[in-house]
Amino acid sequence: MSRIELHIAAEGLTLPAPAAPVAAYVPTVLVDNLLHISGQLPFAADGQLMTGKLGSERDLAWGQAAAERCGLMLIAQMKAALGDLDRVERIVKLGAFVASSADFTDQPKIANGCSELMVRVFGEAGRHARSAVSVPVLPLDASVEIDAIVAVRP
Amino acid sequence: MSRIELHIAAEGLTLPAPAAPVAAYVPTVLVDNLLHISGQLPFAADGQLMTGKLGSERDLAWGQAAAERCGLMLIAQMKAALGDLDRVERIVKLGAFVASSADFTDQPKIANGCSELMVRVFGEAGRHARSAVSVPVLPLDASVEIDAIVAVRP
Amino acid sequence: MSRIELHIAAEGLTLPAPAAPVAAYVPTVLVDNLLHISGQLPFAADGQLMTGKLGSERDLAWGQAAAERCGLMLIAQMKAALGDLDRVERIVKLGAFVASSADFTDQPKIANGCSELMVRVFGEAGRHARSAVSVPVLPLDASVEIDAIVAVRP
Repeated sequence: MSRIELHIAAEGLTLPAPAAPVAAYVPTVLVDNLLHISGQLPFAADGQLMTGKLGSERDLAWGQAAAERCGLMLIAQMKAALGDLDRVERIVKLGAFVASSADFTDQPKIANGCSELMVRVFGEAGRHARSAVSVPVLPLDASVEIDAIVAVRP
Repeated sequence: MSRIELHIAAEGLTLPAPAAPVAAYVPTVLVDNLLHISGQLPFAADGQLMTGKLGSERDLAWGQAAAERCGLMLIAQMKAALGDLDRVERIVKLGAFVASSADFTDQPKIANGCSELMVRVFGEAGRHARSAVSVPVLPLDASVEIDAIVAVRP
Repeated sequence: MSRIELHIAAEGLTLPAPAAPVAAYVPTVLVDNLLHISGQLPFAADGQLMTGKLGSERDLAWGQAAAERCGLMLIAQMKAALGDLDRVERIVKLGAFVASSADFTDQPKIANGCSELMVRVFGEAGRHARSAVSVPVLPLDASVEIDAIVAVRP
């Protein structure tokens, strides 16, 4: 088990199986030393997709948990693409999309569910740039979708 | 005619003229070996912009056709920037924005209109990472907007 | 004062203090020669956040001014990360998110508030690729959020 996977276990978390793309694309593309990861949806530990909109149907705690699950799905894709999570040099950028009603303004708190996971798991290497915005609805009515760019060691 | 342009012709498709930006920016920026392409709107073969929202005003087939047109506009920008489409090494990432009502959850099927075109035209090199989300409305009421990052050969 | 900062002064503009992230992430990540900048919100010269949605609550001029303030916040982050703005080689890509009602279709005009600032400040190096879309709402009810990728000299 790699150093990073020990961190994940120490958090009481289990790395999920990486999700197959819902459609005609691939989960990750590695070009030079940058891994581009497709937008990940929040599948819970039991495999159920976390659905519903913030502000109207779901509360802050739900949204943060959903963002954390997106983060775990991102890490599962890194593991599948790189073999060893210790090859992660830096989480460079997260793009967080929050499904919400038009009066919901706590997108940053939601996205923190993923951002804080990255720092807990990768330490300094987990500190990333980020954008976080609302959207009216996401694929399969997911509550959150997050994509990523990750710098990797050869 | 390049190998890739023969593929395009074999698909019964014609490469459109690359769109001039609607505003104060440029269609593409090449930095190192990555070509960043501005968000492209779905201009049909007759030059008309494909408008209207999925879920309320437009159906799945319309949206998929619009996404395919965004894909052709992206390829037209690659051709304009690179001269020869055979210089495309890999479609790295697509960012797909679908204008829709708040109850529309088939963003992946819409974005496939573009994703499948990339694979038909570029083969393995066309397999990319992707995010696909809804937005309430797009520039000029377009149905779909898609931007891209493309790895190129020197 | 660097050449670029003289341009900013010549525009009658003052570089704001770079914003602290609203949450658990960092403002910028530099990897190889690319600086990834987190989504910036439009803080006015007096430090007030420019809020409200285009199409319903705010007009075009407001939105353009908000986008220009996002641009200044982006430049403030470049200065904080690079020390000297003359190290900016090229503004590569802007991602503009406009908070709006579902009938607002002038996203490109809004985003121009930022795009034109980049060209006034950086000249040819300020010409960038861009995507511009609407979203139903942004963090803290901001009117506009813009993130960026910037190529830098060593």
